[in-house]
Amino acid sequence: MQLKDIGEFGFIERIRPDCLIRPEGVVRAIGDDAAVFRSEGDRLTPVTTDMLVEKIHFLRDAVSGFTLGRKALAVNLSDIAAMGGTACQAFVSIAVPEACPVEYLEEIYRGMKHLAAEHGINILGGDTTGSKSDLVVNITVVGSVAESKILFRDAARIGDVVFSTGWLGDSRAGLHLISNRIAGDEDFLKALIEAHLSPQPCLREGRFLASFPATHAAIDVSDGLTADLGHIMENSRVGARLDIRRLPLSPELRCFCDRFALDPVEMALSGGEDYTLLVTVDPAGAGEIARQFEADFGRPLFAIGEITTTGILERMDPDGSLQRIVPAGWDHFRAG
Amino acid sequence: MQLKDIGEFGFIERIRPDCLIRPEGVVRAIGDDAAVFRSEGDRLTPVTTDMLVEKIHFLRDAVSGFTLGRKALAVNLSDIAAMGGTACQAFVSIAVPEACPVEYLEEIYRGMKHLAAEHGINILGGDTTGSKSDLVVNITVVGSVAESKILFRDAARIGDVVFSTGWLGDSRAGLHLISNRIAGDEDFLKALIEAHLSPQPCLREGRFLASFPATHAAIDVSDGLTADLGHIMENSRVGARLDIRRLPLSPELRCFCDRFALDPVEMALSGGEDYTLLVTVDPAGAGEIARQFEADFGRPLFAIGEITTTGILERMDPDGSLQRIVPAGWDHFRAG
Repeated sequence: MQLKDIGEFGFIERIRPDCLIRPEGVVRAIGDDAAVFRSEGDRLTPVTTDMLVEKIHFLRDAVSGFTLGRKALAVNLSDIAAMGGTACQAFVSIAVPEACPVEYLEEIYRGMKHLAAEHGINILGGDTTGSKSDLVVNITVVGSVAESKILFRDAARIGDVVFSTGWLGDSRAGLHLISNRIAGDEDFLKALIEAHLSPQPCLREGRFLASFPATHAAIDVSDGLTADLGHIMENSRVGARLDIRRLPLSPELRCFCDRFALDPVEMALSGGEDYTLLVTVDPAGAGEIARQFEADFGRPLFAIGEITTTGILERMDPDGSLQRIVPAGWDHFRAG
Repeated sequence: MQLKDIGEFGFIERIRPDCLIRPEGVVRAIGDDAAVFRSEGDRLTPVTTDMLVEKIHFLRDAVSGFTLGRKALAVNLSDIAAMGGTACQAFVSIAVPEACPVEYLEEIYRGMKHLAAEHGINILGGDTTGSKSDLVVNITVVGSVAESKILFRDAARIGDVVFSTGWLGDSRAGLHLISNRIAGDEDFLKALIEAHLSPQPCLREGRFLASFPATHAAIDVSDGLTADLGHIMENSRVGARLDIRRLPLSPELRCFCDRFALDPVEMALSGGEDYTLLVTVDPAGAGEIARQFEADFGRPLFAIGEITTTGILERMDPDGSLQRIVPAGWDHFRAG
C-alpha cells in the first residue's frame, strides 16, 4: 500500500491508536493546529512541528536560504497563532546534503532569526545532520497560552460568523508564477510572489481574537480555505456557507487573474498557504470585534460566511444560488 | 564552504549568535543534551530533537520499520535521561518517499509506540510529508524535571568519579557487523547487533542518579566515550583520566574482538551510540550510589575514571602509564 492510496489523513488515522497512553494533562493530542498539554497553573503549552523537504516544498535554486528559513519558521508560528497563543521556543533540525554550501545554511538561520526576533522567539536547540540527497528542515515550536483564551478547531457554533484575517488566494497565485518561472517584474506580481514566499504568521491577530469570549474556533489557512474550513466543520460537527461576493480578493490577485485568465474565486477557495486565520465568532460579538480589529491592525477583518446546521460546505454565489463544495482533503478525513 | 570543512560543532558556533533573544526563563539553550526552560513552579522543561536520515543513519533494506521507529525515539529519550528527567510528550515528523509502503511506516510507529508505552510517553503530534528520495524521521521530545534534580554537562567537579551505566563499545561492534553484512548467527553476535539497533534509553537510571545530590554532571554516550566525556570536560572546564583496566567491556565484545582481531578498548573509547549515561559523582557519595544502583538495577554502575585538574583527557593503561587522548569531535568544538 502506498501513502498516496490512503492520503495523509488516512495515514494519520492508521497511526493514531495507542499514541495517547497517559491522557492526564493532555488537552489536545493529534488533530488540531498544535498539540496542547497543561503546564502548571492555568497555562497551557501548545507544541507544533512542520517539516520542509527539498523538491517537495521548495526548490533550492528558486528560493534564497533567508526566505526558506523564514518560511520554515513562519508556518510553525502560524499554527500557534491559530490557537491564540504566544510562540516561545523553537527547535530546528536540519539535514544537509554534502554539496550544500554553509553560506546557504547560514542564510536559512538568518531568515529564521529575523522572524524569531520580530516575535520574541528563542531558537533553543535542534539537530544538524547529513543527507545524501535532499535538504530537510524540521522546526518544532513550543508556545504558551492561558487556558481561558485558547482557541481550538472544534468549538464553532451554529450561527457563528466566519472571518478571515487577510486576503485569500495570493499565495497560490505566487506559487503559479514561481512554478511556471514567470518573471515577477511588475509590482503586483512581486506582491503575490512575496505572499507565497514570505507569509506573515498572524500571532498578534490570533491573540487579539482569542481575547474575546465571542471568538469560538480558529484554524490557519495552510491547506486552503475550503479544506481548512472543512477541518473546523469536521471537528465541530457543523456545516458552513461561504458568501462568494465577500471573499477577500486582493487587487493584485484580481490583476493576476485578469492577466492569466484564471478564476480568482477558485484561487481563494482552494489555494492554500495563505496563513491567514479563519475564526468563527458569535454573531452578537462579531461587529464589535471586526471594528476593533480594523482599528488595531489598520486593515479589515473579512466576514466571509457563516456556520450552519447542514453538516456540509456550501457556496452562495452572487445570484443567491447555493452550491455544495466538497473541500479538498475532506474525503481522506472522512475515510479515517 | 562545505559543512565538512567546519564540522557540526563549527557550524553550531556559527549559527549560535542571536538564537537566544529572550533569556528570561531559559535555563539551557543550545549546547547541552537538551534545551531547558522554566515552566511554572519549580519544574523545568527539557526539550530535545533528533533527526534520522536514510542512507546517513540507516539503510531501509537493513533495518525493520519497527527497529527504526524504536531507535528514533530511543535516541531522543536518551537525551532526556542524561538530564535526569522524565520524558512526557513526543512529536514525530516524517518525510516519506513515494515508493515507501505504508506497512513500513506503520511498523515505524509500532516501534515508537512500543518504546513509548514502556516509558509512559505520549506521541502527541507531528507532521507527515512527502519526499523525492529519502525517508526522514525527526522526533522532538518534551520532558519534565524538578529544578533541584536536573543534571547538566557543566557541573563536573575535580575529584569526581566518572561512572558509566552500562557496557561501552557493543553498539560499535554491532554496526561493524551490519555494515560488513556479517551474519549475526551466533548469540554473542546477535547481542551486539541488538545493542546497536535497539539501545535502551536510561531514563530510570538517569532519574535514580539525579536523585542524589552527590551526582554532579551527566551526558549520554552518543558520539562515543571520549567525545562525550570531552563535552563534559569542555563545559565543566576540567580534565579527566580514564582507567583502561576498568572500562566496561562486555563478554560479547571481547568474543567479537577476538574473532575479528579488533581492539575492544578502542571500540569502547570511540565507538559511539552506546546510549549509556556517563555521570560524575562526588567521591564521598560514589560508593554508596554504586551499591544502591546495583541493588536497584541488578547490574553494576561502572567506575571508569576521575575528573582532574589537567584540562586534558588521559588514559591510564594497565601498566600505570598515562597517555593523552584527543577526544573525537574535540577539535571542531575548540575551533568554535
